[in-house]
Amino acid sequence: MSDPLYHVDGDIVPADAATVSVRDRGFAYGDAAFETLRVYGGTPFRWTAHAERLRRTCETLGFADAVPPAEELSDRVAETLAANDLTDAYVRLSVTRGVQPGKLTPDESVDPTVVVVVKGLPRGGVSGERVWGEPARVRSVETRRVDGGVPADAKTHNYLDGILARLELRGTDAHEALLRSADGFLTEGATSNLFFVRDGVLHTPSADLPLLPGVTREVVCSCARAEGVPVETGRYELTALAAASEAFLTNSTWEIRPVARVDDRTFEVGPVTRQLQAAFDERVEQLY
Amino acid sequence: MSDPLYHVDGDIVPADAATVSVRDRGFAYGDAAFETLRVYGGTPFRWTAHAERLRRTCETLGFADAVPPAEELSDRVAETLAANDLTDAYVRLSVTRGVQPGKLTPDESVDPTVVVVVKGLPRGGVSGERVWGEPARVRSVETRRVDGGVPADAKTHNYLDGILARLELRGTDAHEALLRSADGFLTEGATSNLFFVRDGVLHTPSADLPLLPGVTREVVCSCARAEGVPVETGRYELTALAAASEAFLTNSTWEIRPVARVDDRTFEVGPVTRQLQAAFDERVEQLY
Repeated sequence: MSDPLYHVDGDIVPADAATVSVRDRGFAYGDAAFETLRVYGGTPFRWTAHAERLRRTCETLGFADAVPPAEELSDRVAETLAANDLTDAYVRLSVTRGVQPGKLTPDESVDPTVVVVVKGLPRGGVSGERVWGEPARVRSVETRRVDGGVPADAKTHNYLDGILARLELRGTDAHEALLRSADGFLTEGATSNLFFVRDGVLHTPSADLPLLPGVTREVVCSCARAEGVPVETGRYELTALAAASEAFLTNSTWEIRPVARVDDRTFEVGPVTRQLQAAFDERVEQLY
Repeated sequence: MSDPLYHVDGDIVPADAATVSVRDRGFAYGDAAFETLRVYGGTPFRWTAHAERLRRTCETLGFADAVPPAEELSDRVAETLAANDLTDAYVRLSVTRGVQPGKLTPDESVDPTVVVVVKGLPRGGVSGERVWGEPARVRSVETRRVDGGVPADAKTHNYLDGILARLELRGTDAHEALLRSADGFLTEGATSNLFFVRDGVLHTPSADLPLLPGVTREVVCSCARAEGVPVETGRYELTALAAASEAFLTNSTWEIRPVARVDDRTFEVGPVTRQLQAAFDERVEQLY
């Protein structure tokens, strides 16, 4: 593959020249919002949901008014894909508060920095292939998802909680870290939402808990309802997950990734997981 | 003033060319440690304490082994100061986990990115001038300092909690936001540690609470002991601060900045604050 091209602050540039100022607040403080999404057959999947969440994150950070309109962001994504001759891809779209004088308190006047990074992925949908190699091995970790500072439902460049959670996996064969809230309730993986099936009911931690409710999580809940699978959200402990018959993780890149193990509890890939994967693939297939 | 020069990844470059890759984890995730310090008469104040804390932060983030030795970091700071012909300055020294393949889990192999940003400041010490214009007006905010994710005593590029706290000051005349812990105890300002005086005793929130114990905080405690002022650390609520006779904030840039107001409670600049400022200035003066 030739060197990729990225979109930085309005220009298509080679990856090696894709840089931001060290005075950009996205670098200095992680003062930035981002989305990761997949493009299938040239079309971003659930673009509107991603664009709306990006805007909500920027509202939380107090610079939503400075963010380019969704149509303009969509154009930049399309330009980046075209420049790389990609129709099936992973996209990371970031908007930072930009360069401002060197103090913590943000200026009201914001000239945001917009960055689009893309990477080719295999075809998705009904005849596609998975981007993950095997069902996920998951470990519960000590790092907690906490409330009180940056809201958990804002997707920002302050991602060290997830990194510390993943660092707890070093020396193990686990793929994903499972984070709990301060009071011990299951919340989410470092980059994924959690689902499990018990007595035919699909469960996922409630968005009242400190977690980032993913776009894929919403699509999966919608697929489940359409398939007649009851969906319940709630506050669950590890014991509830251990008592489940199936479990899986979701994010935009993985889509629905079955869980093979959580700590010492192993799982087979079950019928509800397969049914929802098929339903999800059908929705993706509509983009081809 | 001419355009400043910064030190980025081993090179002295003009500020406009001082950039990092958009794939640098310091940008993508705020996956980086930093220190801010002051240089007086060409000598960084409390360099060893800053270098040690930078290393501890990188240990928390799991890449301490990749960080250049303190002597090399010190050389880069000195080179940056010399290039800018500065002997009295603010310095921001950052070390990121560098560029790695695009996934959240960090590689064990780390090629860190080191960035030094400097800015001229007035002379400090006995005959110096303050960098702040007036005693600080402080407001208590709803954003909390929380435990469970990134430890509060790690100084990282994940600085959005402090930014959200400062955003709560918009529309007020406050200079600094006062953050409490989840259970309501005073912790620190967005960029400063808090002290107050009551019945002749100097109080500061305990480092057992989620806060970043600053290098200046340690120097001030040392000055107080040398001056015969008793120092107590503890868990304090806002009412304890309101009952104080004096209050001040500390950080490397401000040194000791008196507090003029916390919410509705006003303070005069008191004798203990002045005594500690004089003692602090004497320590700085030794560098000239």
